Amino acid sequence: MSGDESPRSRIRAALRALDVYSDLYLILVGDHPLIADELSSVSFDRARLEIVHAEKTIGMDEKPSSALRAKEGSSIWVALEQVAGGYASACVSAGNTGALMAMGRFALKTFVGIDRPAIAASIPSSGGSVLLLDMGANVDCSSTNLYQFAIMGSQLVSSVGGISSPRVGLLNVGTEDIKGNEQVRLANRLLREDGRLNYIGYIEGHDVFAGRADVVVCDGFVGNIALKTGEGVACLIRDSLVSAFQQTLWRRFLSLLIAPVMRKLYKSIDPVVYNGASFLGLQGIVVKSHGDSNEEGFFRAIEEAIREVDSDVPGRLAEEVEAILRQG
Amino acid sequence: MSGDESPRSRIRAALRALDVYSDLYLILVGDHPLIADELSSVSFDRARLEIVHAEKTIGMDEKPSSALRAKEGSSIWVALEQVAGGYASACVSAGNTGALMAMGRFALKTFVGIDRPAIAASIPSSGGSVLLLDMGANVDCSSTNLYQFAIMGSQLVSSVGGISSPRVGLLNVGTEDIKGNEQVRLANRLLREDGRLNYIGYIEGHDVFAGRADVVVCDGFVGNIALKTGEGVACLIRDSLVSAFQQTLWRRFLSLLIAPVMRKLYKSIDPVVYNGASFLGLQGIVVKSHGDSNEEGFFRAIEEAIREVDSDVPGRLAEEVEAILRQG
Repeated sequence: MSGDESPRSRIRAALRALDVYSDLYLILVGDHPLIADELSSVSFDRARLEIVHAEKTIGMDEKPSSALRAKEGSSIWVALEQVAGGYASACVSAGNTGALMAMGRFALKTFVGIDRPAIAASIPSSGGSVLLLDMGANVDCSSTNLYQFAIMGSQLVSSVGGISSPRVGLLNVGTEDIKGNEQVRLANRLLREDGRLNYIGYIEGHDVFAGRADVVVCDGFVGNIALKTGEGVACLIRDSLVSAFQQTLWRRFLSLLIAPVMRKLYKSIDPVVYNGASFLGLQGIVVKSHGDSNEEGFFRAIEEAIREVDSDVPGRLAEEVEAILRQG
Repeated sequence: MSGDESPRSRIRAALRALDVYSDLYLILVGDHPLIADELSSVSFDRARLEIVHAEKTIGMDEKPSSALRAKEGSSIWVALEQVAGGYASACVSAGNTGALMAMGRFALKTFVGIDRPAIAASIPSSGGSVLLLDMGANVDCSSTNLYQFAIMGSQLVSSVGGISSPRVGLLNVGTEDIKGNEQVRLANRLLREDGRLNYIGYIEGHDVFAGRADVVVCDGFVGNIALKTGEGVACLIRDSLVSAFQQTLWRRFLSLLIAPVMRKLYKSIDPVVYNGASFLGLQGIVVKSHGDSNEEGFFRAIEEAIREVDSDVPGRLAEEVEAILRQG
């Protein structure tokens, strides 16, 4: 229900997912009459879709703490209760990220040994997709937090991405040992000492989109700024391209000729904006779709949740985290 | 002399600057025989160019502390001595950033009231250029540091950029008051309380390249990552474009047709990589060109130094900083 756009685009994404995934069962949580009304005129497999009513919606600007106090009956909370109670395998939301994380921790709990869950997003690079975490759940991180993010990110990429020994990089302002702040330098030491991770050391901002690592670890402040700056540059270039090809009649003609190539190109860069972000460290699957995402974005978030269910991400994560922490 | 490329490109940039700016006088600091040899076969106004010998070069990977100990006779140090002694109005270098900053502080001193100098870079946006600082001089910043960066950045943009009341934004992970870490929230309060700045509040990563502010303030860790991530995205898109237009004969033909438009577009995005970065807070002008910059990059860095000399940036900065700090 929450999110910056009307729930209509999310309902359409849900119906599309039902259509594509024949073994998918969906529970739509929110204003029952509104959802039922949206569904009344379309045909779909009604045996695989259920509506669960939630009487209220957490606003996008609400503080996590106040959202947590007012959780009862909110669509985010009711959706998480479906997962906590075992009625659903995963929760997908486009709502208030802070509220979703706070309620997720409350409803599902974190794994033993994980101090803080992280938000992990998959972004495009010249060498396939890269998992970047944390994306903003934790603005201040200790070296231990960063180390745990590396363990969780590596596990997600190996189980869902099928990469057996993902290269893990630590985001820093340079690659020399003396570079960075204290947390990053300490995390570097922790990661070097862990023989089970394929740790490749420091990587810089321009390496992220060059695909030098499969998993890139940083604190939530830096990750959020890096991702959003990247989106900003992509938008700037796209707008510059569009306006450059509007300036003369000849250029407009050229823009028609190159339109198919450009559409394909934009689509390959789109994941910056559209992919769902995974909450890692919770004892359950939660995927966050961009607040301003459209049908495509929510559909991809549902797909990410399906992949995580199919690979039993929380189960594998629990084993891995326990083994590594016991060893350390 | 230092920098990732041969000094030849920098000598060419110097000669080009001499040619374009008829009142420019240049002192080339470095290996005298090598520079003299490079200059022997070209014609230029020898009355406006001087070579000052420096017997050694600071390596790009050298620690600032060890570079500082070994400063005597190094090209960076000799160049800074020219400014400190009043023989030169500005120093331009493509060398080791950390060493340049450490020696710059030692040779030129910071302004009274400025705890730490910052590195400021001008980047393109959809609404003209934006000054981003700090770009990596300070990986850990207090709220006071951030506040001082705002004062210095605002002054640089108004004196060199000619914008009378530059909009100053503080980079954060969200725009609500509760967002961010403690330093950023405290800096937000300091900036709000200062009536002389045109402070517009928090801005997010995607706002930087959208030109929502004229000056964007952040700590050096975040600024470095943001700029380099932006560069990475620009490279990714450029590479994707080039490869998309290589795939079929028809597309190769199209790429020839659109080549002029694309060249112009690339040039407008290039400043991300090429512009010189200004060291702010020192009692003298120091401009750092990208270590891997080519002739164009070094030429633009010289141009930036000329603009700062013409606008008397250090003089204005000293007055402004003193007035604001006296007021506070």
